[in-house]
Amino acid sequence: MYRFNCDYLEGAHPRLLSRLTETNLEQTSSYGSDEYSERAKDKIRIACKCENAKVFFLVGGTQANYTVIDSILKNYEGVISADTGHISVHEAGAIEFSGHKVLTIPHVNGKVDAAKAREYVEKFYSDTTYAHMVRPGAIYISHPSEYGTLYTRDELKALRELCDEYSMKLYLDGARLGYGLAADNTDVGLPEIAEFCHVFYIGGTKVGALFGEAVVFTDESEGDYFFTEMKQHGALLAKGRILGIQFDELFTDELCYNIGKHAVKLAMKIKESFVKKGYRVYLDSYTNQQFFILPNEKLTALLEKVVVDNWGPYDKDHSLIRVTTSWATTEEAVDYLISLI
Amino acid sequence: MYRFNCDYLEGAHPRLLSRLTETNLEQTSSYGSDEYSERAKDKIRIACKCENAKVFFLVGGTQANYTVIDSILKNYEGVISADTGHISVHEAGAIEFSGHKVLTIPHVNGKVDAAKAREYVEKFYSDTTYAHMVRPGAIYISHPSEYGTLYTRDELKALRELCDEYSMKLYLDGARLGYGLAADNTDVGLPEIAEFCHVFYIGGTKVGALFGEAVVFTDESEGDYFFTEMKQHGALLAKGRILGIQFDELFTDELCYNIGKHAVKLAMKIKESFVKKGYRVYLDSYTNQQFFILPNEKLTALLEKVVVDNWGPYDKDHSLIRVTTSWATTEEAVDYLISLI
Amino acid sequence: MYRFNCDYLEGAHPRLLSRLTETNLEQTSSYGSDEYSERAKDKIRIACKCENAKVFFLVGGTQANYTVIDSILKNYEGVISADTGHISVHEAGAIEFSGHKVLTIPHVNGKVDAAKAREYVEKFYSDTTYAHMVRPGAIYISHPSEYGTLYTRDELKALRELCDEYSMKLYLDGARLGYGLAADNTDVGLPEIAEFCHVFYIGGTKVGALFGEAVVFTDESEGDYFFTEMKQHGALLAKGRILGIQFDELFTDELCYNIGKHAVKLAMKIKESFVKKGYRVYLDSYTNQQFFILPNEKLTALLEKVVVDNWGPYDKDHSLIRVTTSWATTEEAVDYLISLI
Amino acid sequence: MYRFNCDYLEGAHPRLLSRLTETNLEQTSSYGSDEYSERAKDKIRIACKCENAKVFFLVGGTQANYTVIDSILKNYEGVISADTGHISVHEAGAIEFSGHKVLTIPHVNGKVDAAKAREYVEKFYSDTTYAHMVRPGAIYISHPSEYGTLYTRDELKALRELCDEYSMKLYLDGARLGYGLAADNTDVGLPEIAEFCHVFYIGGTKVGALFGEAVVFTDESEGDYFFTEMKQHGALLAKGRILGIQFDELFTDELCYNIGKHAVKLAMKIKESFVKKGYRVYLDSYTNQQFFILPNEKLTALLEKVVVDNWGPYDKDHSLIRVTTSWATTEEAVDYLISLI
Repeated sequence: MYRFNCDYLEGAHPRLLSRLTETNLEQTSSYGSDEYSERAKDKIRIACKCENAKVFFLVGGTQANYTVIDSILKNYEGVISADTGHISVHEAGAIEFSGHKVLTIPHVNGKVDAAKAREYVEKFYSDTTYAHMVRPGAIYISHPSEYGTLYTRDELKALRELCDEYSMKLYLDGARLGYGLAADNTDVGLPEIAEFCHVFYIGGTKVGALFGEAVVFTDESEGDYFFTEMKQHGALLAKGRILGIQFDELFTDELCYNIGKHAVKLAMKIKESFVKKGYRVYLDSYTNQQFFILPNEKLTALLEKVVVDNWGPYDKDHSLIRVTTSWATTEEAVDYLISLI
Repeated sequence: MYRFNCDYLEGAHPRLLSRLTETNLEQTSSYGSDEYSERAKDKIRIACKCENAKVFFLVGGTQANYTVIDSILKNYEGVISADTGHISVHEAGAIEFSGHKVLTIPHVNGKVDAAKAREYVEKFYSDTTYAHMVRPGAIYISHPSEYGTLYTRDELKALRELCDEYSMKLYLDGARLGYGLAADNTDVGLPEIAEFCHVFYIGGTKVGALFGEAVVFTDESEGDYFFTEMKQHGALLAKGRILGIQFDELFTDELCYNIGKHAVKLAMKIKESFVKKGYRVYLDSYTNQQFFILPNEKLTALLEKVVVDNWGPYDKDHSLIRVTTSWATTEEAVDYLISLI
Repeated sequence: MYRFNCDYLEGAHPRLLSRLTETNLEQTSSYGSDEYSERAKDKIRIACKCENAKVFFLVGGTQANYTVIDSILKNYEGVISADTGHISVHEAGAIEFSGHKVLTIPHVNGKVDAAKAREYVEKFYSDTTYAHMVRPGAIYISHPSEYGTLYTRDELKALRELCDEYSMKLYLDGARLGYGLAADNTDVGLPEIAEFCHVFYIGGTKVGALFGEAVVFTDESEGDYFFTEMKQHGALLAKGRILGIQFDELFTDELCYNIGKHAVKLAMKIKESFVKKGYRVYLDSYTNQQFFILPNEKLTALLEKVVVDNWGPYDKDHSLIRVTTSWATTEEAVDYLISLI
Repeated sequence: MYRFNCDYLEGAHPRLLSRLTETNLEQTSSYGSDEYSERAKDKIRIACKCENAKVFFLVGGTQANYTVIDSILKNYEGVISADTGHISVHEAGAIEFSGHKVLTIPHVNGKVDAAKAREYVEKFYSDTTYAHMVRPGAIYISHPSEYGTLYTRDELKALRELCDEYSMKLYLDGARLGYGLAADNTDVGLPEIAEFCHVFYIGGTKVGALFGEAVVFTDESEGDYFFTEMKQHGALLAKGRILGIQFDELFTDELCYNIGKHAVKLAMKIKESFVKKGYRVYLDSYTNQQFFILPNEKLTALLEKVVVDNWGPYDKDHSLIRVTTSWATTEEAVDYLISLI
């Protein structure tokens, strides 16, 4: 049965697995000090047009989020997030485990709106009791967001300006960044992200790798002890080259970008088909996650043939579903899905 | 140049990599709920003769240590460890990051001696101010230890009895367990470990896997919420099947055990050769790590030809070195090393 | 200038200060093991009709909240609170500092509504991804609430039933409990609180003491190591008798209750006067905190003569103010305030 | 029965209690923003000859230690302490609770020896794996030490130089500082402490106050958000003026110093008497704590008449005892003790 319920259903893009196999018996130094990791870091710096960026490879998204956020926050600071943000809902309290509060504000299309964030921060500092409250020390955004939506260059710029004004850091969770970079109408590439974010990560797990996320510090005042913090947070891989080899390959011949293009093209095809058949789109996503509002009986029928992600009741008669494509989704699978609706 | 400096220099045992490649495009459910993971867990339960054991797959050793220890300790408890224990030296304070103190006692041949541990615990409870101190809630041991030494069945039994007497948990770090199980003169197999330890992990990273450690809870009162705790500690792999497939293979046709046998046989060959040539052994190890005391000029000469691990000065004229074999070490490499000494 | 802005403007009720002075040069054992502390604990057990209750004296409210909550939660659990709850707003992230998430739900009259809490918990457990989320392990309520409102016996009972159903603990923050017990129309006394709450604290700081809060564990499965947890959280007073003497006196001749009666009587007099003069009440409180909606120009004039607590804009033309009485408020001060409105 | 077992057996010096009584019904603002607290801070700045020092009043020693140490350390740093240091033994793991490791080195006369600390730090940075270990970020010393011994000016200077060299902070726990300042042969006064320590606290609990410790940041780069950190650590007293009034009085007419003089004079009298009668001194202390080695039968007899602190067996036939004087010890009590030996 074809599955569209998430973008981490398969192993790795075959090119990555081949590279792991080819290099398997080489002996390299550990903890990311090998030449593959160095090469991958260089390629990432070039792609980001940020030659002094500090790059680290971690294993997973929650791990990257809570290690980075704990690293950039002071002990008494919290992190602003949309109420739909992954860190505030689905990370089992990892941020709090590391001692920090997630300061939620209502999302706008799954995103942190700079105006709303400003309102939050200004209200905070105008409160006479603010020294009794958790100081906002960073803003967490995900790009694409948990709803597949994307920030524009101007939106990132506005968030960065807000951060600079109030001594906060801007952190971007790029778990699905490859699918965001490949969207048709985005004006945000890696250089723009590197320009506006103090730190971000480029997701591998959902974009072709077995696992792995590349954390990039563009802010020179951050990240100097991140290696030790990784170890302290259980986030340092002994055979670091496994991560290095994968990212080296993802940044060879634009593989990462092409993976994104492939998945986005199929996602757009799915969206057009659903729309053409009269289904409502929940939030208008141009990336690999698509959200539709389906009559309950239609959903029941659909789930007998394929797996999609049921996000629960939209109203009494309808449900919200997520359909996800990835580097591994085939044209054939998509055509089959479309034939069912 | 041949390297003997550690046991995580290469990728994975070819059989594991093959299985990852064969299954690569299958779609499976995530976070370890796939059939490979289930199968691997069953095989581990059988190998441990502990049918109700709860088994979880984590990525690395420090991660396993601090997630397990935080899980089994109460908020106000600490963990007893040998002063040479990995958690007390080389994990960047991960245990303390999770809020717990490491209570060190002097090692005996790299191990926690039950008599010394008892002395510590009895002294603790006889101190009139003990309510102002950190209560020992668990004992951490590594088997093989950081010095390659092994516990006997009786030693494990004595530690378990001490734990039972004082409401502590016995936790065994098995980063190199495969090499311990394969030692010539050990009376400790997986069933003995499962019998005496409340929880332990079977290391994959150093014994043939790309990465991965299998945490096994034998104590029925522990581990019920470990999945959530893994997520909270950044230790949950999205594509859990990558771990499941590897452990499934490691526990097929005794691969894990055979890997151990191979490495131990070569380690013994190295030891015999060093001894025969008159070098002193530091601690008498029967596993894949060997420790020798070398004249400094000899070490300098050796390091021009091969890589071994220099543990620093033993005395003014000698240094302590570690020579490590693994699943990937070849007879040829060993012979070359022997030819140099 | 008379101040009505909070209930911790003065030192201690003179009877407490006298007792501290009378006993000053006695030598007693430390950390709360003195006879005064023992006597105070006994009196509290009797007042609560809970003879096996474990009683501990801490210094302040935030300290009590985060030490208790960390004690009763498992590592992976969070605490449900109204969004107006003190722990979620004004404790600088102390709960998160101890590793736990505050799970907020919208308040109803400043309180946690059992039906809304049930909805939250049921939604949590019906979410297929709940193992990735923070498990609710306790409910935090304040009585009186931050808005002066009170729970009824039935409301407490409903909350306790919900807790029992989902293995949660009910914790009551009684920073101003004395003023709640003395309210005219309450059916909740100490025995009811002890019956329905697993743990609660009786506030001293705001009810006649220099400082001090009495934490009461009624749940026999909790609190066994609370002494050590207090030390660990910096919450153990060396000269514990300072707390014991004060609570001993507060529970002598119903002093605590009479203090409450005095403050509540004056608060009711203030409310009636404001209402009679046509000012709107914000939430209808029967305790020592009163909330009024005042025209801005009226507030400006008032603040020239007395200090009240300005809680900010209610609408364009009005502000929300808090007027607080305490054991130390005089009839004279109240009459002066009334003369101004 | 006279007690000499510690220096917190009574309430407060009568002058402090009088001031609390005189000011009891004044209304002041809260959380330490009152005029008494401001005045006390000014007096402390003057006594320290450090006009820009940031001064905060906390309730107790463990609380001060763990709030300050958490404030000055980075997330990945630990604190060096003598193995006899209060933070490493008797604070129930408060430092670890806040996420940091205590890095112990063997004490020299109860103190941190700068040469031994240097050895530790140099060994740390020369270890090729130091990035996997806890970076030393501060040195904790107590003055007087837990054994009553004192640092000389030169010793403080050497520790500060070491700190400056390796980007560490020097923190002095002054729980009994008043008794140290009053020692006969010390060359360390408050200005010297302020000169060499980045942060320290002046103890009140053991030196005349009901409770209270004055934390002094002399390092301008530290302490800016300490108010919020106090709240976060449960260390902010609502009625801050209780602390302010007491320290204001302690720094009026050299009360703090005179209290010290009184206790030290009596302690010296005790020491001389014990020595004259042939008892051995354990460590030669010139402050209010005296340590003697007593034959067991002598101790048993003594404990029938007075209370001294039994620190357990020294050898088979002898025990180590601590005899402590304080502001409240009388000449009469001391003469009685001397008559018994």
